[in-house]
Amino acid sequence: MTRPAIVLLSGGLDSATCLAIARRDGFACHALSFDYGQRHGQELHYAALLAQALGAASHRILPINLAAFGGSALTDSSLAIPEDGSSGIPITYVPARNTVFLSLALALADVLQARDLFIGVNSQDYSGYPDCRPEFIHAFATLAQVATRLGVGGRDLRIHAPLQFLNKAEIITLGTGLGVDYALTRSCYQLDAAGRACGACDSCRLRREGFEKAGMADPTPYQDGVLLDHAPPGPDN
Amino acid sequence: MTRPAIVLLSGGLDSATCLAIARRDGFACHALSFDYGQRHGQELHYAALLAQALGAASHRILPINLAAFGGSALTDSSLAIPEDGSSGIPITYVPARNTVFLSLALALADVLQARDLFIGVNSQDYSGYPDCRPEFIHAFATLAQVATRLGVGGRDLRIHAPLQFLNKAEIITLGTGLGVDYALTRSCYQLDAAGRACGACDSCRLRREGFEKAGMADPTPYQDGVLLDHAPPGPDN
Repeated sequence: MTRPAIVLLSGGLDSATCLAIARRDGFACHALSFDYGQRHGQELHYAALLAQALGAASHRILPINLAAFGGSALTDSSLAIPEDGSSGIPITYVPARNTVFLSLALALADVLQARDLFIGVNSQDYSGYPDCRPEFIHAFATLAQVATRLGVGGRDLRIHAPLQFLNKAEIITLGTGLGVDYALTRSCYQLDAAGRACGACDSCRLRREGFEKAGMADPTPYQDGVLLDHAPPGPDN
Repeated sequence: MTRPAIVLLSGGLDSATCLAIARRDGFACHALSFDYGQRHGQELHYAALLAQALGAASHRILPINLAAFGGSALTDSSLAIPEDGSSGIPITYVPARNTVFLSLALALADVLQARDLFIGVNSQDYSGYPDCRPEFIHAFATLAQVATRLGVGGRDLRIHAPLQFLNKAEIITLGTGLGVDYALTRSCYQLDAAGRACGACDSCRLRREGFEKAGMADPTPYQDGVLLDHAPPGPDN
């Protein structure tokens, strides 16, 4: 029987690649997404498309209202999304988000008797977000061993972070080789109702640079009116 | 300024005592409860009463539908609540519940700049539930240091489990000294609509024994028709 795994799936480029890797490694993938009050909630639509396209065994979307706590531009539309690539912990950091997401993945793993959890954190994230760093993943893996029925009795529970030491271009190259259709992924923090990216937020910027460095065409649909390098000149130019 | 703390509050005897301890220790207590699909959801009513009676600075009830994952008699009313005090991990274990609850407490701590988290796990629980054991609390404390903005930069984040090595009778004695009104607490897994305890489930049994061993009157309202030691004989007797 195929071994089950829980795969955190946001609808973005990283987690889609992570799901493709888990599939390549032979797991029956149970994808888990969260409706956590993110302003780019349309990403969940793409998560569902990706789960299907990448052959997930199941896909769940769990509501968890992190917006109730506040403290992040990603769940509070009164705070501006940064577009300047500034350093430090960005305002788009959602407090303890990956701890909460991995905890819920652990709960599902316990129910489904899955001993493998996949999360798409990578080196480009952990420059800014504390809960994307290797020491965080390591500490969560240690916790997982003692936190559940599965971990009790010394049976291994593994947290896989296969993108941990890759940059965006490397992730895109890897995923393309595994058949990921990046036209189905969204990374933008400010998606419009049609699912088009702003092209300006830090997440868009990293993504665009990734496609450029990988030497691949960027399949992302961008919003009208955003001036891109390759956009036609507007009436004011 | 009074230092803020996050206190997990279920409406039960243990977490009420834990809140009283956090108050005694001088913290401004932000109580956090979860509407997680527990069949004894009325406990949340008592959590709100306790937060007020014990002087919490705030009280939040966050919905998080753990029942969607299944796997526990505590969230699945088609499974029977055990009444036999059997050993091993009980069917009332909710997969990864304390990991999820502490993760969300950590998120709130990060938002409120609180470096102290209180949880009422105790020795009577950790005989059966993996996520009540000292090694679990220790692993979570280690995770907390690297998981959030607060933990970054080596600043301490503490997980307090002040009941960890106490039994029910000791907890009741301690809490009574701190002014906890246990008539406002509920421990039963099968509360009726009026908030009366069944008197028969494992949680009721432990609670009743606790009051007996502490030499205190048990203020719990029990359901009609449940034959207690001190109940009047019914028509069949």
